[in-house]
Amino acid sequence: MISIEQLLEKLQAEIESHSYGENPAELYDPIKYMMSLGGKRFRPLLTLIAASIYTNEWETAIKPAMAVEVFHNFTLMHDDIMDRAPLRRGEPTVHEKWNANTAILSGDVMLIRAYDLLLDIPKERLRLVLERFNCTAGEVCEGQQLDMNFETRWDVSEEEYLEMIRLKTSVLLGFALELGGIIGRADEKSIKLLYSAGENIGIGFQLKDDLLDVYGDPSKFGKQVGGDIISNKKTFLLIEALSRAGGDILADLQRWIAMETFEKNDKVNAVRDIYEALDIRSFTEEKIKAYFTRGIDCLKQLDIDNDRKTFLLAFVQQLVEREK
Amino acid sequence: MISIEQLLEKLQAEIESHSYGENPAELYDPIKYMMSLGGKRFRPLLTLIAASIYTNEWETAIKPAMAVEVFHNFTLMHDDIMDRAPLRRGEPTVHEKWNANTAILSGDVMLIRAYDLLLDIPKERLRLVLERFNCTAGEVCEGQQLDMNFETRWDVSEEEYLEMIRLKTSVLLGFALELGGIIGRADEKSIKLLYSAGENIGIGFQLKDDLLDVYGDPSKFGKQVGGDIISNKKTFLLIEALSRAGGDILADLQRWIAMETFEKNDKVNAVRDIYEALDIRSFTEEKIKAYFTRGIDCLKQLDIDNDRKTFLLAFVQQLVEREK
Repeated sequence: MISIEQLLEKLQAEIESHSYGENPAELYDPIKYMMSLGGKRFRPLLTLIAASIYTNEWETAIKPAMAVEVFHNFTLMHDDIMDRAPLRRGEPTVHEKWNANTAILSGDVMLIRAYDLLLDIPKERLRLVLERFNCTAGEVCEGQQLDMNFETRWDVSEEEYLEMIRLKTSVLLGFALELGGIIGRADEKSIKLLYSAGENIGIGFQLKDDLLDVYGDPSKFGKQVGGDIISNKKTFLLIEALSRAGGDILADLQRWIAMETFEKNDKVNAVRDIYEALDIRSFTEEKIKAYFTRGIDCLKQLDIDNDRKTFLLAFVQQLVEREK
Repeated sequence: MISIEQLLEKLQAEIESHSYGENPAELYDPIKYMMSLGGKRFRPLLTLIAASIYTNEWETAIKPAMAVEVFHNFTLMHDDIMDRAPLRRGEPTVHEKWNANTAILSGDVMLIRAYDLLLDIPKERLRLVLERFNCTAGEVCEGQQLDMNFETRWDVSEEEYLEMIRLKTSVLLGFALELGGIIGRADEKSIKLLYSAGENIGIGFQLKDDLLDVYGDPSKFGKQVGGDIISNKKTFLLIEALSRAGGDILADLQRWIAMETFEKNDKVNAVRDIYEALDIRSFTEEKIKAYFTRGIDCLKQLDIDNDRKTFLLAFVQQLVEREK
C-alpha cells in the first residue's frame, strides 16, 4: 500500500505544476502565491487517503482533492480581507501584498477553479459530488458570517459557538473524507461515517486550536501563544469562562477584556489564571477528547481491511495529536 | 408559441420565490436585496428563448437561466466594491447599505448558488455545461481585472479594449445563448453559432453603452449622460480619440483629462466637441453596427423554423435598439 509520504509528495507536485491561468498576471500571480505558501495539505490528504482505502486507483482522486485545497485557500484569501489579517503562514496576506480588490477577484477565480478541478469526477457521480460541495461551500460561508457576527456579541452560547466552528471548519473536513469515499465507490453508510468522522474531528481540531493558543508550547505552536487572549477573541475557552464566572472572577475577566492599555504578558497570565480557577482547561480538553473519540469511532466502524483501517487511523491520530 | 412577456413573467416569479438560504440573515438578506433590484433580466431571457426555439420543454431551462442571472449579479456585487460604486440601479450598493465584508461574503455565496442552479441540467450534459460555465466565469473575472488595469494606463489600444469588453461583458451573453441551445439539444454547429451571436452582440452592446453615455437621450438613458467623460473613464470613444488626436486637439483633450476642477457641463461639451472633430461618433456607430450585424447573421444561419427564428431575432432586435 502507498504511504502518506508518497501521497503527499504526489499531491504537492500536482499542486505546484497545476496552472490556474496566466493572463492577466495581476489576477493569477496572487493565486500562485497563495497556493505556494504551503500549509499541511491535510484536507486533500484526507480525500486521497479515504479514496485509497477503497480503490487502488487513488490517483483519480488527486484533482478532486486539489479542489478541496483550492477552495480552502479561496476562503482564507477572502477571510483574510474580512479579518484584516496582515500575515498568513508567516507571509504577507494577498490584500497586503497586493490590495483588497486583487484579493477579492483572485479569490473569486480560485472558487471557480475549485469547481474546474471537481469536473474530474466520473459522470455518474458528478452531480452528487457537486450537490455536496455546494452545500459544504455555502455552510463554510455561513460559518464565517456567524464568526463575524460573534465579534460584536457578548452573549454567544457554547452551543452557538460549536455550531459556528462546525460550519466554518469542520464541514469541509467532513466533505474531504466523504469525497474520497464517493470516488472510491464506498457504500452509502460508509460515506456517511466518513463525513461524520471529519465533522467531529474538525470540531475537536478547532477546539484544540483554541486550547493551544492559551496552553501551547511556544517553541512548537505556529502562532503567538496568548494571541486570542490579547485580542479578546471569542474562543471556546472565553465563552465558557464568561458563562461560568460570577462575582469577583467575572468582574476581573470583564476588566481585562475592557482594558485598552496593558502589558501583553500580564493580560495573558491573568486570563490564564481565571481559566484555571474556572477549570476551563480540563473541561476543554475533555470536550476535544469527546469529539475526537466520536470521530475516530466512526472510522472504526468502517467495513474495510484492517490494514487500510490502520493506515487511515494512523493519519488521523497524527492530526489529532498535533501541537502546532 | 410562448411570448417573451410570458417567459419574463415566469422567470421573474421564479427569481422572486427562489430561496438562496435564510440563516444567518446578515449573509442572505443582501442576496435577496441584490436580486430584487431588478434589471432587464435579458441574460436569462436569452437562455430561455434559445431553449424554447429547440424544445417545447423550455421550463427545464428556468433554473439554469437563473444561474446566469445570479452569476451576473454576483459579479455586480463584487465589481461594485472594487469600483467603489455608491449606487446600483438607483439604489445603494450592498457594500454601502451593509459593508464591504458583507458584499464579499454574500457575493461568494451567490456564486455558489449559481452552481446550485446549474445542477438542474440533465446528467449527460452537466459536465459540458459546467466546463463552459467555468470557462466563462473565469473570463468574466479576467475582463474585470483588465478593466481595473486599464484605469492606470494611458496606452490602451482599441484591440485591447475590445478584448477586455469581450471578456467582461460579452462571453456571458454568448454563454447564456449557448446554454439555451445545449438544454434544447441543438447540434454542435448551432451551439457555436448561438455563442458567437451572443459574443458579437455583447461587444456591440457594451460599445453602445459607451456611446449612449455621451450621446444618449437624458430622458431615456438610465445613468447621468456624460458620466464617463466626467470621470475620464477609458471608453471606446476616449481610447479612439486618444489614438486619433494630434497637435492642438490632443493637447486640448489631455488638458481636460488632467483638469481637477471644472464645471461638469463644460467638460462634457468640450470633450464631445473633440469627439465630433475626430469623427468618433460615426466611427463608433459603424463598429456597433458591424458587431450587431455579425451577431444577427449567426442567428440567421440557425437551422430552425422561420417562426422560431423570427421570435429570437425580434427579441435580439429589441436589445440592439435599446436607448437606455
